[in-house]
Amino acid sequence: MIQIAILGFGVVGSGTAEVLTENKAIIERKVGQPFDIKYILDLRDFPDSPFADKVIHDFNIIVNDPEVSLVAEMMGGSHPAYDFTKACLEAGKSVVTSNKEVVANFGTELLGLAKTHGVSYEFEASVGGGIPIIRPMNQDLSSNNITAVNGILNGTTNYILTKMETEGTPFAEVLKDAQKKGYAEANPTADVEGLDAARKIVILAAMAFGKRIDPNTIPCEGITKITVEDMETARELGYAIKLIGHTEKRDGKILCMVSPRLVSQYTPLSGVSDVFNGILVDADMVGQVMFYGPGAGKLPTASAVVADMIDIMEHTPANIKAPVWADATAEDIMDFSTYACKNLVVLDAPLSAADTLASAFGAVRFCGRDGRLAMITAELTEATMTERLTKVDAAYPIITRIRLL
Amino acid sequence: MIQIAILGFGVVGSGTAEVLTENKAIIERKVGQPFDIKYILDLRDFPDSPFADKVIHDFNIIVNDPEVSLVAEMMGGSHPAYDFTKACLEAGKSVVTSNKEVVANFGTELLGLAKTHGVSYEFEASVGGGIPIIRPMNQDLSSNNITAVNGILNGTTNYILTKMETEGTPFAEVLKDAQKKGYAEANPTADVEGLDAARKIVILAAMAFGKRIDPNTIPCEGITKITVEDMETARELGYAIKLIGHTEKRDGKILCMVSPRLVSQYTPLSGVSDVFNGILVDADMVGQVMFYGPGAGKLPTASAVVADMIDIMEHTPANIKAPVWADATAEDIMDFSTYACKNLVVLDAPLSAADTLASAFGAVRFCGRDGRLAMITAELTEATMTERLTKVDAAYPIITRIRLL
Repeated sequence: MIQIAILGFGVVGSGTAEVLTENKAIIERKVGQPFDIKYILDLRDFPDSPFADKVIHDFNIIVNDPEVSLVAEMMGGSHPAYDFTKACLEAGKSVVTSNKEVVANFGTELLGLAKTHGVSYEFEASVGGGIPIIRPMNQDLSSNNITAVNGILNGTTNYILTKMETEGTPFAEVLKDAQKKGYAEANPTADVEGLDAARKIVILAAMAFGKRIDPNTIPCEGITKITVEDMETARELGYAIKLIGHTEKRDGKILCMVSPRLVSQYTPLSGVSDVFNGILVDADMVGQVMFYGPGAGKLPTASAVVADMIDIMEHTPANIKAPVWADATAEDIMDFSTYACKNLVVLDAPLSAADTLASAFGAVRFCGRDGRLAMITAELTEATMTERLTKVDAAYPIITRIRLL
Repeated sequence: MIQIAILGFGVVGSGTAEVLTENKAIIERKVGQPFDIKYILDLRDFPDSPFADKVIHDFNIIVNDPEVSLVAEMMGGSHPAYDFTKACLEAGKSVVTSNKEVVANFGTELLGLAKTHGVSYEFEASVGGGIPIIRPMNQDLSSNNITAVNGILNGTTNYILTKMETEGTPFAEVLKDAQKKGYAEANPTADVEGLDAARKIVILAAMAFGKRIDPNTIPCEGITKITVEDMETARELGYAIKLIGHTEKRDGKILCMVSPRLVSQYTPLSGVSDVFNGILVDADMVGQVMFYGPGAGKLPTASAVVADMIDIMEHTPANIKAPVWADATAEDIMDFSTYACKNLVVLDAPLSAADTLASAFGAVRFCGRDGRLAMITAELTEATMTERLTKVDAAYPIITRIRLL
C-alpha cells in the first residue's frame, strides 16, 4: 500500500484527489499495487468535501510519517512550496508538482536532492497543463539533439489574443471579460506581462539543453501593447499574433525569451486558439513535433500530476532516468543583441516612404496606408533593429514592432 | 556493452543505424553504458556503406549470439519479420519495431511472449512515424480512461488530399505526382484504400482499450472516390476532407474504422497538412490532446525506433510496464450498423428537393446548385443512413456520401 499526501487543496489539489479517486481502478491496475490518500494539507477545513477527514494543517505530520512515500505539491508560489518540497525529498519521499514557479527557480537543486536521496521529483504538469511534454522530451525525443522549442504556453493570453482577433475587441475589454469568466486572475500581471510563460520556457529550455536559466533574467515582453489594428495588419500579411516562449541553442549558447510573435498561418502553432496550449519541438532527427491540448484547468492539470504519480509508483525510483540540470552560467547564455529574426514594423509614415524604409530594413513586403505603413523586415539582429528603429523614429514614429517566429 | 542487431537495411533500418551513430554520445550518456551495432541482417550487401562489415545474411547468427540483447526489426511485411521477432523474444532478446503490419496482426502474441521471457517488445515507430504517441498513451495518459482516438495516420493520402484541396488537381493526377516524388509507392493500394491506416488505428485502439481487433475485419474506406468537387463543397460548408482512423468505446463495445471524414476548420486535425500526421486522443480527465509531426521518413521514424531502444537499454526489462493486450472477441466489437454520425450527402437533385430531403435526413444545412445538392444530415446510424440513401437514390442519385468527424 502506497500512502500519498497532497499539499494544497485548491483547484489542482482537489482535482488530483478527484482523479486518484475516480480512476482508482485503472491506476491501481497500471501500478500493480493499491494506494491511498492519507493526508491533505491546507490552511482551511473542507467540512463538506468527501476528503474532509484527510485534511490536516501541520506539515510536520506528513514529513515525519514514514508511511508516506509520495507527495503531490499543489500549493503554488515559491514559499513554503519550495521549503516543503525540499523537506520531503530530504526525508526520502518522492514529490510531484504542477508548480512552475518552484521548478523554474529551484529545479536544479530539487532534482539534485531527489537524486541524492534516491527518490523522484517530477513536474509534467508544470508546463502545458494536461499536455504530455516533459516526459516525451525526456524519453521519446531522447535519440535527438533538440535545437529549439517554441510554445504557446499561457492559456489566458492565448484566450485574449484569440478574442481580439476573432471579435475585434480591444485588449482591455477582453481582459475584463476573461476575468469575469475566470480565465484571467484579478491581478493578471504574471500572465499578460509574460512571466508565467517565462517560467515555462525556462523549464523547457532546461529539459532541452540541461541548463536552467533564471526566469527573471530572460528577455520578456507581454501582450498589453498589442492592438486590434496590429492583428488586422498581421492577418493581411498572412500571420496570427501569438505570445511565444522561445528557446534555442546556437554555437553552444542558449537563448530563452518570451514575446509576441507573428506566426505564419501555414504552421501548426497558428491554429492553437483560445485557452489551449501548443508546444513545437525542433530536433535534429525527428524534425518538428507538436504537442497540443488544454494548458490549464482542474482535471487536465491533475491528469498530468497523476501520470507522474503513476510513473513513480510503478518504477522503483532508482530506475527512473531523471533529467539532469545544471544552473546556467553567463557563458551558457546567448547575447540577446546577436539574436536575429524578421520583424513586423508599423510606422507613422506615408506610403511614399516605402523605398527609403525598404533600404533601411531590407524589407520586401509592405502593406497599410498613409500614416500606418507596415513592413516585414529582413532577418536582422536585435542590435541592428534597435539602431535602425532609433534612426528612423525621428522622421517616422514607430507604432509597433513585433518579431516573426 | 550492449550489442544490437538490426534486421533489414532499407530506409528505416539504415536510418536507425545513422541515428545510433550520429547521436551515439547523447544516447550513451542517457543510457549510462556503451552500446554497439554488432550485426545488420539483409539479403543484399552494401559494400559502399560505412556499416558494410556488419552486414550478414543468416538470421541464425543473430538469434544464437548470446551477446546480442536488443534487436531492431525493420524488415516490413508479415513474414519473416513476425517469425524472426518471435524467435528473438523466445531467445531472451528485446525487440523494437516500426512494422505496423506485424504489430497489428501479431501484437497480442508478441507482447505476451516478451512478458513470458522477461524482455520488451516496443513499437513507438509503428504509428505516426517520429511522433511520440505509443509511450504517451501508455504513460502520460495512464491516469485517464481513453474514450476515443482520431488520427490522420497516413502521410501519402494526406499529401494527396492536401494537393487536391490547395491546387484543385484530381486524385489520379496527384497520385502520379506523389509516386514520382517518392511519397507514394508504385503499388499504392495499401495507402489509398486505407489498409495502412487500418493497421495503425487497430494499434491505437489496442493501446486505448487493451483489445486488438483484426485489421482486416474493420470497416475501411479509402480516398479513391474523393473528387475536387467534394472538397469544394466541404470547404463551402466549413470543413476539410481527411482520411481518418477512428476508434471509440461505447457501452463496453469498441469500434475501429477508417474512412474519409469532413473535419471542421475550427478543430486542430484540419490543420494537419501534406505528409504530416496528427493524432487526437479523447480522455476523461485531460479532455483532448493532439500529437503532431512527421508520420514517415527515414530519420523521423528512426528517431522513434531509437527512443524505444534507449527506453529498453536504460531500464531493466522487468521494470518497463508494457501494455497488456488481449485479442478482441465478437462481444468486444461494436455492431457498425449502430454507429451514428453526421454525414455530407451530395445528390443529383434540384434545389427544390431540399425540403423533401431535409425531412428524410433531418438535414439543416444545404449548399450547391441544381443537379448537385449538398447537405449535412442529422446524426444518423449507419443502418438508418443505408436505408434512407437506398430509398432516395431512385429519385435523386447519390453522388457522394462522406461522414463527419
